[in-house]
Amino acid sequence: MKIDVLTLFPKMFEGPLTESILGKAQDKNLLDINVVNFRDFSTNKHQQVDDYPYGGGAGMLLKVQPIADALTSIEEKHPTTKKRVVLLDPAGKPFNQKLAEEFSEEEHLIFICGHYEGYDERIRSLVTDEVSLGDYVLTGGELGAMVMIDATVRLLPEVLGNDESAKTDSHSTGLLEHPQYTRPADYNGLTVPEVLTNGNHKLIEQWRLKESLRRTYLRRPDLLETLTFTSEMEKMLDEVKKEENKMKD
Amino acid sequence: MKIDVLTLFPKMFEGPLTESILGKAQDKNLLDINVVNFRDFSTNKHQQVDDYPYGGGAGMLLKVQPIADALTSIEEKHPTTKKRVVLLDPAGKPFNQKLAEEFSEEEHLIFICGHYEGYDERIRSLVTDEVSLGDYVLTGGELGAMVMIDATVRLLPEVLGNDESAKTDSHSTGLLEHPQYTRPADYNGLTVPEVLTNGNHKLIEQWRLKESLRRTYLRRPDLLETLTFTSEMEKMLDEVKKEENKMKD
Repeated sequence: MKIDVLTLFPKMFEGPLTESILGKAQDKNLLDINVVNFRDFSTNKHQQVDDYPYGGGAGMLLKVQPIADALTSIEEKHPTTKKRVVLLDPAGKPFNQKLAEEFSEEEHLIFICGHYEGYDERIRSLVTDEVSLGDYVLTGGELGAMVMIDATVRLLPEVLGNDESAKTDSHSTGLLEHPQYTRPADYNGLTVPEVLTNGNHKLIEQWRLKESLRRTYLRRPDLLETLTFTSEMEKMLDEVKKEENKMKD
Repeated sequence: MKIDVLTLFPKMFEGPLTESILGKAQDKNLLDINVVNFRDFSTNKHQQVDDYPYGGGAGMLLKVQPIADALTSIEEKHPTTKKRVVLLDPAGKPFNQKLAEEFSEEEHLIFICGHYEGYDERIRSLVTDEVSLGDYVLTGGELGAMVMIDATVRLLPEVLGNDESAKTDSHSTGLLEHPQYTRPADYNGLTVPEVLTNGNHKLIEQWRLKESLRRTYLRRPDLLETLTFTSEMEKMLDEVKKEENKMKD
């Protein structure tokens, strides 16, 4: 997979892109990330990339020209790749696991990171997607791009050491993950549930599914609405509801 | 504000914490960030921080001991600060602007970044908040912590150059931001709406509010449900709905 990032703060990417999974993916030649400072494409003699908004108001807006020309230069360098051009913007569609899966199928991703007050509206005409990381405001799109790259790249084949890991996490199954325990069996009086230590794999599997349902029911009931239930899951969820209602009494 | 980050990948923070707004906030002594590698607190002779899950399954879990001892060491160093301890976890409550505002009122934030398959359940007993960045899976909590720190720190007084900027962005008003334009007035035939160039500030303000409502209605109607409407906004939203329905016909 090829990724280009357009930013005014290329140094922000130095730590995150070389450490952990993203570093490993590049070492294995599964990933080629290129960070471009679009200030280098400004035709303004002071290399200006922003300007005042028409109609007045606070802050500066990113101009169309430097970003348009940076995109053209990528197109000229890689004329044959199929590109998906993503504008990081709080007014975009919310990023989620489904979009990460879509991105992981692409050949060439380009992320445009804004900074300052916002974009000239016409920059939107240059992109295929406008995406928001979540309902909060950041100082720029850089961290958002890193998050999207991380969520996408970990889904590429051969990137994670253990294929199963990518599939059982919270949000991958549509449920939050069940509680998990590792040694010691007793930590300051906090012990491991007995079912996990008795070696009965069928009981362990049932306990985990039920506790996944419980955690999702208690914390994120909205996730249950879009889920397809087996009859076993329906029965478990009923039990969970009864148990939790008893707890309240 | 004091922030401690517990991570196994301290180098990931090098670029993001020194550039842009976070770097400036530290230069101005408004912010003191300390990145702690909790592997240094492992009492295991191989400095192991993870172990196999009870009951079997893929991946490794973070152990309680190194994280518990890293937290104790922070407590000993800063016994008087009021601490909020945030566990980065996809099963936590979703991060949003309201939580960023809450965090920005705190004296001392501690972020615990997981990595690998997950946490020993008992780590949850050591924290005040379990927070998820969004409904997607990342390789670790590091990028999530950076995002939360960025969203929080930009709300601190004196961090942003222009106070107004923090308040008019998408999500700060409950609406998505209206379209914005800067020079040139004509870019490859794409022009600036006339109202923004005629200098009538009342008309400009009305146009902006209406286009904020339009963008939110088209892209994120869910945001409108929790909003308090003035009668002017109600009238504008009705107009927007009529105009957009006409577009569809």
